[in-house]
Amino acid sequence: MTDLFNRARFIMVHPSHPGNVGAAARAIKTMGFRELCLVAPRFENVAELPEAQALASGATDVLASVRVVDTLAQALAPITLAFAMTARERVLGPPVCDIREAATLSRQHLLEHNEGHVAVVLGTERSGLTNEDIAQCQRICHIPANPEYSSLNVAQALQLAAWELRYALGNLDGKAATPAAGSAEVSSSDEGNALASNEKVQAFLAHWQEALVDIQFLNLAYPKKLIPRMQHLFTRSALTNDEIDMMRGVCTAMIKAAKGQLRKD
Amino acid sequence: MTDLFNRARFIMVHPSHPGNVGAAARAIKTMGFRELCLVAPRFENVAELPEAQALASGATDVLASVRVVDTLAQALAPITLAFAMTARERVLGPPVCDIREAATLSRQHLLEHNEGHVAVVLGTERSGLTNEDIAQCQRICHIPANPEYSSLNVAQALQLAAWELRYALGNLDGKAATPAAGSAEVSSSDEGNALASNEKVQAFLAHWQEALVDIQFLNLAYPKKLIPRMQHLFTRSALTNDEIDMMRGVCTAMIKAAKGQLRKD
Repeated sequence: MTDLFNRARFIMVHPSHPGNVGAAARAIKTMGFRELCLVAPRFENVAELPEAQALASGATDVLASVRVVDTLAQALAPITLAFAMTARERVLGPPVCDIREAATLSRQHLLEHNEGHVAVVLGTERSGLTNEDIAQCQRICHIPANPEYSSLNVAQALQLAAWELRYALGNLDGKAATPAAGSAEVSSSDEGNALASNEKVQAFLAHWQEALVDIQFLNLAYPKKLIPRMQHLFTRSALTNDEIDMMRGVCTAMIKAAKGQLRKD
Repeated sequence: MTDLFNRARFIMVHPSHPGNVGAAARAIKTMGFRELCLVAPRFENVAELPEAQALASGATDVLASVRVVDTLAQALAPITLAFAMTARERVLGPPVCDIREAATLSRQHLLEHNEGHVAVVLGTERSGLTNEDIAQCQRICHIPANPEYSSLNVAQALQLAAWELRYALGNLDGKAATPAAGSAEVSSSDEGNALASNEKVQAFLAHWQEALVDIQFLNLAYPKKLIPRMQHLFTRSALTNDEIDMMRGVCTAMIKAAKGQLRKD
């Protein structure tokens, strides 16, 4: 069970208030998690600031081991299933679930994929997550709060998400050894069938974009919504390592074709 | 549904920090509740103090209507099912449940008893509830947090309890305000966002296969498993009409590139 908890990460994008980072560390630890990752925080040394320390209460160990990275892509690199926490409705984007459904999905995912890692991604208190942030996640996750007053701050939202995740993962205790465990073996025995990490998916998307430009399907000066829509399509699909390799082969062939380097028969 | 929410009360016994009272008001309101009752608070006028106001954020209406009473018995007077939130194990006392079970019990109770009222009772941060307080409640309620670090503050505990209660009560009227339903409507109202028919998917896959042959990625004499794997990938993705159109645009561009028909810039 501990292993499952260690494969969950909480990511705060551009946190600006040290107190929220401290409160987040506390919330995570009370629920048995320990991985907190900050993307480009306003203060680089936020984890050391007095307000963060004060609100972390006894969770200073979580603060001490906090990861600080420059981009969300870095934070998501090892992640195979990421939930973007957002209150706003989006017309375009990953499928939507609530935090209880997210917890259930996370549990299934972690059981079925021995190398799977899940993440909960939270934006700034002021503006939330951008569409670009959300496009890097497999799911949008809502907290169905009071529609007339849904003013949860980031630490409270994180507390609720961590609670739901704990409840779902904790229920495994005693009920393990289910068929799901069996299928996990099948998947993990085969590297190719394993889900690709976010890092691999992003590298493929960059390659795909390059190929689309070369075949003159995509004009970067007028991209319209093609880039986010492609990102959405392939992120949602949860590509395996084999599928990534296959699609990268397609990219290479597209680029060759565009450059007139095809074999002449 | 509103009626059920109005028959739930949150009670804080001897709160000493105005900030916690404000945060509690906010937590209650975000979850659609409005009744906060304080038993002998350290500051009689706590709801008016600046720190309470600040942490209540937009929930000042909950603060303004807060009830202040002298004893827990007064606070519990109209209540028919009260849950004493406590972290400590008690040898003697009411039956124990966790906050999810408490929410389910509350729902049943409110549905079965038109005049029923439920309450969640929280003690002070320092000492929690006394045995005498607990004895006035029908149930002891735990939050199964990290046993090595269960340091939830009173506002966080209340937030989690209010969330669980909301989720249980909200599930009554069909599916209440689950955003998932809303987003489904958004999608289906728009032809482009609607899922593509199987016919369209198959036509795209034929076009895609043709393009892969043209760019010399796929050799139909030795297709290996490329065709079923591509089919699997795109079928699983549940493509929308817009996505089919987009991907067919890619196919067309691939074929043009392969035939040396790209624009010369």
